[in-house]
Amino acid sequence: MTYFRKNIEEMQGYTPGEQPKTTHASSLQPIKLNTNENPYPPSPEVEKTLKSIDYEKLRLYPNPTADKVRNTIADIYGVKCDNIVVGNGSDDILTVAIRSFVGENQSIACFEPTYSLYPVLAKIQNATTLKIELDENLGFAFPMELTDNTSDLFKSLNKVKLFFITRPNAPTGTVFDITSIDKFCAIFKGIVFIDEAYADFSEDNCLELQKKYSNVIIGRTLSKSYCLAGIRLGWAIADKQVINGMMKVKDSYNINYITQELSVAALLDQNHLNKTVSRIKQSKERLVNNLINLNFSVIPSESNFIFASPPDKKGSQLFEFLRERNIIVRYFPGKITSKYIRITIGKDKNIDKLIECCKNYIKF
Amino acid sequence: MTYFRKNIEEMQGYTPGEQPKTTHASSLQPIKLNTNENPYPPSPEVEKTLKSIDYEKLRLYPNPTADKVRNTIADIYGVKCDNIVVGNGSDDILTVAIRSFVGENQSIACFEPTYSLYPVLAKIQNATTLKIELDENLGFAFPMELTDNTSDLFKSLNKVKLFFITRPNAPTGTVFDITSIDKFCAIFKGIVFIDEAYADFSEDNCLELQKKYSNVIIGRTLSKSYCLAGIRLGWAIADKQVINGMMKVKDSYNINYITQELSVAALLDQNHLNKTVSRIKQSKERLVNNLINLNFSVIPSESNFIFASPPDKKGSQLFEFLRERNIIVRYFPGKITSKYIRITIGKDKNIDKLIECCKNYIKF
Repeated sequence: MTYFRKNIEEMQGYTPGEQPKTTHASSLQPIKLNTNENPYPPSPEVEKTLKSIDYEKLRLYPNPTADKVRNTIADIYGVKCDNIVVGNGSDDILTVAIRSFVGENQSIACFEPTYSLYPVLAKIQNATTLKIELDENLGFAFPMELTDNTSDLFKSLNKVKLFFITRPNAPTGTVFDITSIDKFCAIFKGIVFIDEAYADFSEDNCLELQKKYSNVIIGRTLSKSYCLAGIRLGWAIADKQVINGMMKVKDSYNINYITQELSVAALLDQNHLNKTVSRIKQSKERLVNNLINLNFSVIPSESNFIFASPPDKKGSQLFEFLRERNIIVRYFPGKITSKYIRITIGKDKNIDKLIECCKNYIKF
Repeated sequence: MTYFRKNIEEMQGYTPGEQPKTTHASSLQPIKLNTNENPYPPSPEVEKTLKSIDYEKLRLYPNPTADKVRNTIADIYGVKCDNIVVGNGSDDILTVAIRSFVGENQSIACFEPTYSLYPVLAKIQNATTLKIELDENLGFAFPMELTDNTSDLFKSLNKVKLFFITRPNAPTGTVFDITSIDKFCAIFKGIVFIDEAYADFSEDNCLELQKKYSNVIIGRTLSKSYCLAGIRLGWAIADKQVINGMMKVKDSYNINYITQELSVAALLDQNHLNKTVSRIKQSKERLVNNLINLNFSVIPSESNFIFASPPDKKGSQLFEFLRERNIIVRYFPGKITSKYIRITIGKDKNIDKLIECCKNYIKF
């Protein structure tokens, strides 16, 4: 006997990347390269704003539509406040999108491999997920059949209400060709959610597609490039009508007062964003070169992490080897993904330790 | 042409109580007695903790299960950590409950009048709401037919998966008889969600029913009695199995790092809670006595607000009269509720201004 809906009862919950308990002995702290957090502190403007928060204001409900945050985002991206809805992290935005566009027994679609949360959120909605496998031999590129509305693959989408394109993709770090995405958006009848959580680390992005198509939603977050996973802020940029509907679905007061204040401070400091992103790109280049020298195969990444496979192609074994040496990376079981580990780009000293361990792994 | 589900397209969004824009000229600030916020600042321990937050930690994801918060709550209520799930405000908990237990075309039930968000959340889920009208002449008491599984009213619940009982109820401020709720929980086959957002202001609560029945969920929040609407923390106390399932439905990182830290500080200062609650009770008594002297009818309230009807029974007119004098209360249209206004208990100086205005309204 259960009180739960059948889909909830039978599902496994999503397992987020391990968050090790912090201890005071920093020498015992594991090196955490597993959840794509930024290794650098947030903007000093965030610290200043945090210090200036008047705790007495916490007795009041926050602004339900987070207008200061939305206006700040609108200014940065050259859109209107009406084109933006903010969420309690981008996971909240993904949840709101599924609840807005996909009913029970309807479908979402996403690639395989990609962010593993999408199918979980679909299952919670009692919706199904159509997974479209990316070809490792083609470098996990955008499947060309999706740009042709007469292809069998495209036709198989006829019941799909919401298509998630993750760009840069996770865990591969790759970017899909924008021209192909453009063609797909033009012919697909449902919503195309382009999840750009990592876009600040890439050379280009899909913001122009949002301006071009009323069925395109762009998702963004402060968790990665803005070094603020702890405050939970994500947002969607879309057509005004799309935003209006999503506003009805989100919880009324989904962004707390402090997060609203800190988000504005972080967003206004674009200089800090650029500096941090550029440091991470440099560390990434060094890591990639070192691993290639060790005969790893490394997928070209435009993100703050890399997807790398050791010469023996045993991702799980390398993951365990590093774990025993107090370095946590991410491993995804699966036919293709099990050859790889995903490594978040950390500070140089930690990347050095990782490289050292990888050298030992090769000898081992 | 719409991309939205039909239920989302046709629904109105929930309208939260007005949050006037703050200005620097405090003399122009309206007196805000409309959203049941606490007029007193949060515990000084919250201020201390806020000052001690290390902003560098904000780069990391927060603990996904908010264990420190849950352990603190468990200690206070004499339950286990496993009996608790926390939400981004209690609205998040309500949303998670509906998504856990109620599928499309299934039903929730709640009373009328009660918290108007429940039917909105049901509609988002494409579920229906069975509203059970409370009898004003019986003081909005618990309907006795619900304690009898042979009554027509009880039988009408046969498709209801989730029944919301708000105690103290909003906007009436009344408390249902616990013995009757107990009998109902024993015979109802679905989940009984007892929303105790205001329970710290009442003389008793339903925590014992949660220990007695596996189908009972108790909802609580820091927004009212703990003076912390701005940080968004609510929680549910229930059977371990029920909590396990709800954990699968909530967003992974639904409570940000700062809210987790501040919540623990607030919860540990039970002395501040008790002092604040007792001050509000005193102000409430004074307000009630004054309004009764002005021939208002005032529903006996065990909450931090009262539901009061002026001698002319024109709630809307009194609402507008007060609004013009810079006092914001809450008015709910509806056959019964339109006779009343709901007044949040504020500081004595503001309650005095309200009483003064009510005197003028009578003469007017």
